[in-house]
Amino acid sequence: MGYRILETDDIPAYLRERGHWDDPDDITVREVSDGNVNRVFLASNASGTRSLALKQALPWVRVAGPSWPLSPDRADAEARAYERLAEVAPDAIPAVHGYDPEHYALVMEDLSDLEVLRTLLNEGAAYGPHTSPTIGRLVARLSFATSDFGMTSADRKALLAASVNPELCEITEDVVLSEPYIEHEHNHWHPGLDDLAAAFRADTALRTEVADLRHTFMTSAQALLHGDLHSGSVMVGVREGAPVVRVFDPEFSFVGPIGFDLGLYWANALVSEERARALGTLSDHADQLRLSWEAFEAEFRALWPSRVDTFFDDAYLDRFLHRVWTESLGFAGTEIIRRVIGFAHLTDLTTLADPVPASRRALRLGRELILHRTRLTDPAAVRAVVDALTP
Amino acid sequence: MGYRILETDDIPAYLRERGHWDDPDDITVREVSDGNVNRVFLASNASGTRSLALKQALPWVRVAGPSWPLSPDRADAEARAYERLAEVAPDAIPAVHGYDPEHYALVMEDLSDLEVLRTLLNEGAAYGPHTSPTIGRLVARLSFATSDFGMTSADRKALLAASVNPELCEITEDVVLSEPYIEHEHNHWHPGLDDLAAAFRADTALRTEVADLRHTFMTSAQALLHGDLHSGSVMVGVREGAPVVRVFDPEFSFVGPIGFDLGLYWANALVSEERARALGTLSDHADQLRLSWEAFEAEFRALWPSRVDTFFDDAYLDRFLHRVWTESLGFAGTEIIRRVIGFAHLTDLTTLADPVPASRRALRLGRELILHRTRLTDPAAVRAVVDALTP
Repeated sequence: MGYRILETDDIPAYLRERGHWDDPDDITVREVSDGNVNRVFLASNASGTRSLALKQALPWVRVAGPSWPLSPDRADAEARAYERLAEVAPDAIPAVHGYDPEHYALVMEDLSDLEVLRTLLNEGAAYGPHTSPTIGRLVARLSFATSDFGMTSADRKALLAASVNPELCEITEDVVLSEPYIEHEHNHWHPGLDDLAAAFRADTALRTEVADLRHTFMTSAQALLHGDLHSGSVMVGVREGAPVVRVFDPEFSFVGPIGFDLGLYWANALVSEERARALGTLSDHADQLRLSWEAFEAEFRALWPSRVDTFFDDAYLDRFLHRVWTESLGFAGTEIIRRVIGFAHLTDLTTLADPVPASRRALRLGRELILHRTRLTDPAAVRAVVDALTP
Repeated sequence: MGYRILETDDIPAYLRERGHWDDPDDITVREVSDGNVNRVFLASNASGTRSLALKQALPWVRVAGPSWPLSPDRADAEARAYERLAEVAPDAIPAVHGYDPEHYALVMEDLSDLEVLRTLLNEGAAYGPHTSPTIGRLVARLSFATSDFGMTSADRKALLAASVNPELCEITEDVVLSEPYIEHEHNHWHPGLDDLAAAFRADTALRTEVADLRHTFMTSAQALLHGDLHSGSVMVGVREGAPVVRVFDPEFSFVGPIGFDLGLYWANALVSEERARALGTLSDHADQLRLSWEAFEAEFRALWPSRVDTFFDDAYLDRFLHRVWTESLGFAGTEIIRRVIGFAHLTDLTTLADPVPASRRALRLGRELILHRTRLTDPAAVRAVVDALTP
C-alpha cells in the first residue's frame, strides 16, 4: 500500500502497527500543525506519562493546499539530517523513534513542554546563557562531521549525492537569495519601507554581492546543513531543573556552505534585537551572534585534531573559519532583508505597533552585512555596525 | 550474463551483437591499450573504409593487475561526460556510438589517424593556432552548460548527484593535491631535485595554499569537468585539409571547480614550454595559456546572455571569471609540481638528456603559481613569472 495522508483518527492504529504504541485504548491524538508545509500530531496517554509526536510531509504546501505541490521527499532529507545530528548532538535535537519513508512520516519526541525560541523572545524573554552556545556547538559538530575534515573522501561523495534536496534548495534560492532584490509578486512590505525596498532593487552593488552569496549557496558543498536554522526551528525550556535546547525541522538540509546555518541564526537574533530595542526590552540580545560564533569556533577547533585528513594544516583551519565567518555575515544579511521585504516576514517585527523604525534599521543592517562582510572581521565589528545604525 | 573482460577475439562478435558492425568476415581487431587503467581495441575492415574503437574499463589498474583494484564505474562517468560534451562540443570529442554499462565498454570513433598532442609536442611540433583555442572553448561550453548559469537549479542537483566519482576524485586528491608535499612512497624524483623536493615538503606556506586548492577541489561544485585535461588527453591532426582537435578520456569527470580543467591544460603547456626551451625548439609554446584562457573567456561571455538564471548579473560574471582564472593558476601549479616530484611524471621532461634544469624551472614556476595566484591577474603576469625564472 502506498502513501496516504494520515488523519487524526488514523494515528493510534498507525503508531501501534509500527511498534511505537502499546495500548490502543489509552491514546489521545490531537493535530498541532503549525508550520507552513507539514502536519504534526501529538499522541499521549491519559496519565500523561507517555507522549509522541508524528510529523507527516504532505505532497503540497499545507497552508496553500494541492494547488501548490511540494514533493514530500523533503521528509527524507529531514530524516537523514536527524540521523547525522543524532550522531553528533543527540541532546540538542528531539529523539527520533522512527522514520517511515512510505508515508514520509517521522515519529519523534514530543517537545510540547518546550517553547519555540521566537515565541519566547517575542514575549520579552532573554536568550539566557545556553541557547546560542548550544546552536553554535551543534552547527560545529554537524558541519565538522560531514565535511572533508570529518569524513573520508568517498563517504563524503556518497553523502553529497544522497543529500541533494532540489525543491527546498530552490525555495531558498528564490525567496532568500533573489526575489527581494527584483520585482516579484511574492514580495510585500510595509508602505513605510517603500523607499528602501525600491533602493535595494536598484542597488547594483548589493545585487552583485547577493549573486555571489547565491552562487556560494548553490555550489559550495562544505558540509551537511540544517538549512533553515531560524529561531522558529529552536525550542527551549527547562526539564528537571536543567535548561533544554532542541533544534528541529531540518527538512531544508543539504550539503552547502556552513555559513548559511550560522547566518540564518544570526539574522534572526539581530532582528529579535531590533524588536527588543523598539519595545525597550533589550537584555542579552546583543551577545547572541558573538556567543554562537565563539561556541562554533571553539567546538570546530576542538574537533580539528580528530580530522580524518591531516593534509589540512592549522593555518588552513584559520583561513577556512574566516571564510565561514565572512559568508555567515553575508547570509545573515540576506535573511534579514528577505524577512522584511520578501515573501515570509517575521512576527518579531510585524507584531510591533509601529514596525517601521525597527524594520528600517534591520534592512540597513542587512545591507551593511552583505556589502561589507569581508571588512567586518569579528563580532565587535558587527556590533559597531549595529550601534552606528541605532538612533 | 554479467561483466566479462573482452579479449581481442571477442570483439568481432561483441560489436556485431550490439549493432556496431555488419560483416563478421571483414573485421580485423588489434589491442592498442596505452593508458594506465583501461583496454582499447581498434576494429577495421580490410579496405580501411570503416573502423571503430572499443574502450573497456577493467576492475583494476591495467598496468598493475588485479592487485590494484579500481572500480570500472569510472566508465559510467566517462560515458556521462561524453554525453554532455556531445551536446556542446561535438566536433571536439570523438563520436560515441554506444555505451554498454554492463561491460563498462564505450564504442567510439577511431582516432588512430590523429596523434596525441603530447607526443607531437615532444617531437618538436608547435601547437598551431587551433589547439589551445579549441580547448578553451570546450571547457567554456561544458562548464557553462553544466553550471548554475546553464542549467535549472533542479537539473543541476540531479547532475551533481549522478556525477560523483569517488575513486577517481580520490586519486586526484591524493596524487595531485597532497602527496607531493608530504613524505609518501608514491613520490620519486631525479636526484638533482633533492633540495627542491625537500624544500617543498618543508614549505608551510605552500602547504596551506595547496590545502586550500585541495578543499576547493573537494567542495566547489561549479560545473562538470573533464577532470584530466592534460596534453595526453588531446589528439590533433588534419582531416580533409582541416585541423582536427579531439579531447578524450574524461573518466575523471565530476562536478568540480572549472579551474581544474584549465589548470591541468596550462600546467602541461608550461612544462612543454620548458622542454622546448631546454631543446632550443621553442615556437608558439609561450602563447598557449593566453590563447586557451582568451578562448575560454570569450566563449563563456558569449554564452552568458543565454544563462537560465538572470539574477546573476554582468558584474558577478566578471567576479566569477576572475575566480576561475585564479583557481586555474593554482591548480596549474599543483599539476606541474606533482608531475616532477610526485607519482606520475611527464615524458616532456623525463626524456630530456638532462631533465634537471627544466625540471627545476618547472618546480619553481609551479610554486610561484600556487603562492601568488591572487596577484597574477592576467596572462602577461604569468609570462613575467616564467621570464623571471629563465636563465
